[in-house]
Amino acid sequence: MLETAWRGIAIISASEAGYNLGEVIRQKLKSLEIPVIHYKYSEVDIGNIWDCFDGFIFVMALEGAVRTVCKYIKAKHLDPPVVSIDDNGRYIIPIIGGHWGANEMAIELSKILENNAIITTASELLNKPNVEQIAKRLIAKILNPEMIVKINSAFLRDEKVCFLSKDFIINIPLIKYGYDEECKYIITTDEEFKNNDKYVIYLKPLNLTLGIGSKRKIDIENLFENIERILRKYEIDKKRIKIIASIREEFKELAKKFNAEFRLISYKQIEEFSNPCLTPPSKKLVELGLKGVAEIAALIAAGGRNARLVLRKIPINNEATVAIASFEG
Amino acid sequence: MLETAWRGIAIISASEAGYNLGEVIRQKLKSLEIPVIHYKYSEVDIGNIWDCFDGFIFVMALEGAVRTVCKYIKAKHLDPPVVSIDDNGRYIIPIIGGHWGANEMAIELSKILENNAIITTASELLNKPNVEQIAKRLIAKILNPEMIVKINSAFLRDEKVCFLSKDFIINIPLIKYGYDEECKYIITTDEEFKNNDKYVIYLKPLNLTLGIGSKRKIDIENLFENIERILRKYEIDKKRIKIIASIREEFKELAKKFNAEFRLISYKQIEEFSNPCLTPPSKKLVELGLKGVAEIAALIAAGGRNARLVLRKIPINNEATVAIASFEG
Repeated sequence: MLETAWRGIAIISASEAGYNLGEVIRQKLKSLEIPVIHYKYSEVDIGNIWDCFDGFIFVMALEGAVRTVCKYIKAKHLDPPVVSIDDNGRYIIPIIGGHWGANEMAIELSKILENNAIITTASELLNKPNVEQIAKRLIAKILNPEMIVKINSAFLRDEKVCFLSKDFIINIPLIKYGYDEECKYIITTDEEFKNNDKYVIYLKPLNLTLGIGSKRKIDIENLFENIERILRKYEIDKKRIKIIASIREEFKELAKKFNAEFRLISYKQIEEFSNPCLTPPSKKLVELGLKGVAEIAALIAAGGRNARLVLRKIPINNEATVAIASFEG
Repeated sequence: MLETAWRGIAIISASEAGYNLGEVIRQKLKSLEIPVIHYKYSEVDIGNIWDCFDGFIFVMALEGAVRTVCKYIKAKHLDPPVVSIDDNGRYIIPIIGGHWGANEMAIELSKILENNAIITTASELLNKPNVEQIAKRLIAKILNPEMIVKINSAFLRDEKVCFLSKDFIINIPLIKYGYDEECKYIITTDEEFKNNDKYVIYLKPLNLTLGIGSKRKIDIENLFENIERILRKYEIDKKRIKIIASIREEFKELAKKFNAEFRLISYKQIEEFSNPCLTPPSKKLVELGLKGVAEIAALIAAGGRNARLVLRKIPINNEATVAIASFEG
């Protein structure tokens, strides 16, 4: 789960002991190339960032985590997975979103921290896929959410679910590729597919924008290769990058290589933009009076209210950062 | 904690496996003479009974318990202690009210069920007294709640707290009896006590009513002795019983022995009375078209909006039940 946490993990600690453990966790996740931000409980508006991350880790006594979560929960399929870890790191407890990643996250963290994951859901439900996770992996919108329950129930009963798509692949066990007459349950990205005898859920892969920030002129060919590598790692087809955005005109060259539109963003636009999901700027950037560029550029290019950060900024060779946002269109 | 759960423990189970484990827990608590009621999640309005019990046990996955608790929590000092136990009885997890009894309850249940209590609060805070618990043990109202934090902080720092009372004793370690010049923090039932150099919290012990139900004529002397034994067990001074209430005139004799007023309650009053905290009648009573009498009689005699069930009905020799309610007066 952690390796696909493209939107990152938020760690929230309350006490000094919790902060120290939170820093240990942050370093370990960072070393695994997982985007991670550590907030102090007293300094963050959690409601503001509730929809911004793929998972939350509350480093505090369970009761504190529960009372906090209670303020923000909406519904099972809307809330992020949340894991609570006590200040001693002894118990790693999924609080909500057990079947939406929290159990997996707790198990992975228990290996990293060499301590106990407290899993309280029926074990036979562990690791079953569900439509929401598949949509997230594909960066897709679910066009007929009323069908979610039907398909998810089929996964729970271990019935065959088929995935039908011309352009997309997805690496999830239990899913059969392609279509055959036996498949009663079908997930497809093909809006034209119709079959009234089947249960069909339609996913619409969203268009993507790539934002780039860099401090100086860098080699475009090398950058292109690195971005290609990152996209492969996250199983994102490079053809989906529709717009490349930056404050530096030189990246027009890069856009050509992606067959994408280039969007030049002004300093003023960067300054004026705000979004609760942005990664807070590092101390170094703050001292220089700068804001991060990659996430803002990606979000501005994605435009409008449906723009959503889907890959939190990641560094490339310490000379650039890239981030990806999605938009419907 | 369980042995002073006079208002009883509510078990709430969601699945069939959970129901079976809930029944095991109910039988074990019952055998320890702890008042306990087991509800099915789908059949109970939890909001209605939230303030009626000394503790809740949710037998279900933690997430279900958390999402349920989230609907009803008010504030740390107002919520009941809640413990969650997964359907396999593997993990016994205090969710809220850790320092208000949930940690203790989880530890005691872990011994009963021979399994793991998952305590995530700082261990040095375990078993510290607090003003709310002392007031509950004394069945008393806190007259100046604004002082609670000061006194509780003193307990947490292991400072000396004195208990000053002409009539009441309380069995809590860390409390020094009586008053000396060294005591900076004082809990008292004496409204006349004044000392501006000290932090003083005033507890007003409430008056009590005793309700009795019985199926047939029973020996009053024997009943009196049994009730005296129960009151001693719960450390309730018998002088505090101000009213004895029943639908049977013969208990007038019992009232005389307690130096208490007797209140005859009519069948009609019993029929018309409702209160969310009443113990649901047994199947046997329902078949006979009857409601329990003891709790209703106690609550009617206590009258008005401040009436509160403080001892859930307990059987005496299988021939009578008694319950206690409190009222300000």
